[in-house]
Amino acid sequence: MDEFDLINSITPRTIHHSSVDVGIGDDAALYTAKNGVQEIVCVDTMVEDVHFKLSYSSPEDIGYKALAINISDIAAMGGIPKFYLVSLAVPLKWTESEIKAMYEGMNELAKLYCMDLIGGDTVSTSDKLVVTVTVIGEVEKGRACLRSLAKPNDIVFVTGEIGSSAAGLSLLLKESSHPETSFETNYFINRHKRPQPRVSVGRLCSNAQRVALNDISDGLASELHEIAESSSVSIEIDESLLPVHPDLPKLNSKWKEWALFGGEDFELTGTISKEDWDVLEQECCRLQLPIKKIGCVREKTESNVILKTEEETMTLEKKGYNHFK
Amino acid sequence: MDEFDLINSITPRTIHHSSVDVGIGDDAALYTAKNGVQEIVCVDTMVEDVHFKLSYSSPEDIGYKALAINISDIAAMGGIPKFYLVSLAVPLKWTESEIKAMYEGMNELAKLYCMDLIGGDTVSTSDKLVVTVTVIGEVEKGRACLRSLAKPNDIVFVTGEIGSSAAGLSLLLKESSHPETSFETNYFINRHKRPQPRVSVGRLCSNAQRVALNDISDGLASELHEIAESSSVSIEIDESLLPVHPDLPKLNSKWKEWALFGGEDFELTGTISKEDWDVLEQECCRLQLPIKKIGCVREKTESNVILKTEEETMTLEKKGYNHFK
Repeated sequence: MDEFDLINSITPRTIHHSSVDVGIGDDAALYTAKNGVQEIVCVDTMVEDVHFKLSYSSPEDIGYKALAINISDIAAMGGIPKFYLVSLAVPLKWTESEIKAMYEGMNELAKLYCMDLIGGDTVSTSDKLVVTVTVIGEVEKGRACLRSLAKPNDIVFVTGEIGSSAAGLSLLLKESSHPETSFETNYFINRHKRPQPRVSVGRLCSNAQRVALNDISDGLASELHEIAESSSVSIEIDESLLPVHPDLPKLNSKWKEWALFGGEDFELTGTISKEDWDVLEQECCRLQLPIKKIGCVREKTESNVILKTEEETMTLEKKGYNHFK
Repeated sequence: MDEFDLINSITPRTIHHSSVDVGIGDDAALYTAKNGVQEIVCVDTMVEDVHFKLSYSSPEDIGYKALAINISDIAAMGGIPKFYLVSLAVPLKWTESEIKAMYEGMNELAKLYCMDLIGGDTVSTSDKLVVTVTVIGEVEKGRACLRSLAKPNDIVFVTGEIGSSAAGLSLLLKESSHPETSFETNYFINRHKRPQPRVSVGRLCSNAQRVALNDISDGLASELHEIAESSSVSIEIDESLLPVHPDLPKLNSKWKEWALFGGEDFELTGTISKEDWDVLEQECCRLQLPIKKIGCVREKTESNVILKTEEETMTLEKKGYNHFK
């Protein structure tokens, strides 16, 4: 593969943001930041056989997800994603068309958000594929949704449904199977392979007075821990309120573990004042964006995160779920 | 290794730029861009056994170089490096102290430029170390040194000396040996392992009316090709003017190949009008920054880059030098 040909083939023909002064094709990209905004930047890496397997993920899927998980970080700040840069360490056996397919998977998602690919690097490796995506976004000054903003008496909420990504992975790894149609099987699998970042909800949160927000990459319990720690509060959630797909319990007895610790749902979880919650809930309802109250914030205690079930009240640990163990 | 402990240990205790609003510790970093500047962003990946070998590079060396090559891209735009983000795919056998040492190598260089580490990601891999660094910088609006700015009759220049990095690698791989002292051996090896980005010269170039600029990552010939192509000109250089270390010819008969195609020198090469050249040369002289005229820009011909030697005039191909072949 010729690097120059590859760069040429992936260079976008159109640029959405006029603030891009120089995109791909020089030593670095140049853009002009707007007045009155803060720049947001994040980077995430996905490694073959750690975060995905080539046996079930196509190059398009891998590209899509690598960008999605970074857009999700921008969403979790309440921001608008604008630009991305892609760095690939590609095994020698990959063909140019497979590499292009990975970029096409990213482009599919980037188009939705009018994002511009402005740079990157492609190098070869002798072994596993490593995909690193950097995303740059912006948020109106002072409106970012930080983890440290939770206060006692806030409502705790989560978007969409949780545990479905872990369910999809379990189906992919054949640890679970769906008793009925393949439609639901594909649904869960897509939740794992092609997560949908919650940019719109993040934007609504940035309109509110004060929202502490995280995206669910490591699992609900872990994300709430981070908010509790950063904000010096305790967070109490109610098991009966956790939004899960109605078929989730049919798949595997581990479904509650998936919902709390499974991760990779890339939904948003956060806290907001009671007054602002009503507005946020209504706005989400109007835009048909699923969001649900799952608990409330307490004064700091020894337990960062507390789960109330019908039978008991227990401390939730900050553990993740190691999918490939 | 616990990811949370690691993040804690690498999080900087002080921040140089007050424009950093949120550094490490949330979903993404937040900063405020200055008025009147353009943001510069670039990303580069280094892979074990492709770009370095653990047999001769310490974790500190690897970290240092991974940051240096990105700072060099900012220098090649005439910019000031400000922030960096680090994404690591780390083999399971690496210890936490080795990972920290890699960050220390980066920090050594970052301190020189008052750069802030504002984010990143560390994941495990079963195989080779992959280090991806994203650097963000800035340049005064309209002052970036782009590849497309060369014009006929410009002076072509290069900083420092070229071929020394390839020489260092050759010494490391024991393909060459230095006939005399180990001082020179170490010098060449350091040129390979710890390149010095030319930020100061880049800044002087950004003061000039118009400078086309590239950093030498793929070799002088390749970089000049890029400028010639982007600017639709031809570039003629004079072999006798190429700045090489006086000991280079002693090391290996390939020394001219190293100078033209070796790459990884991370010097700057560019073109500037005759009038502005005198000023740039004087300013560099005053600051003891080595810079040398090596040729001139011509109207576009069939050959993008032409080398004049005592015997002949030849076309230089856009080839790189594959070090590990």
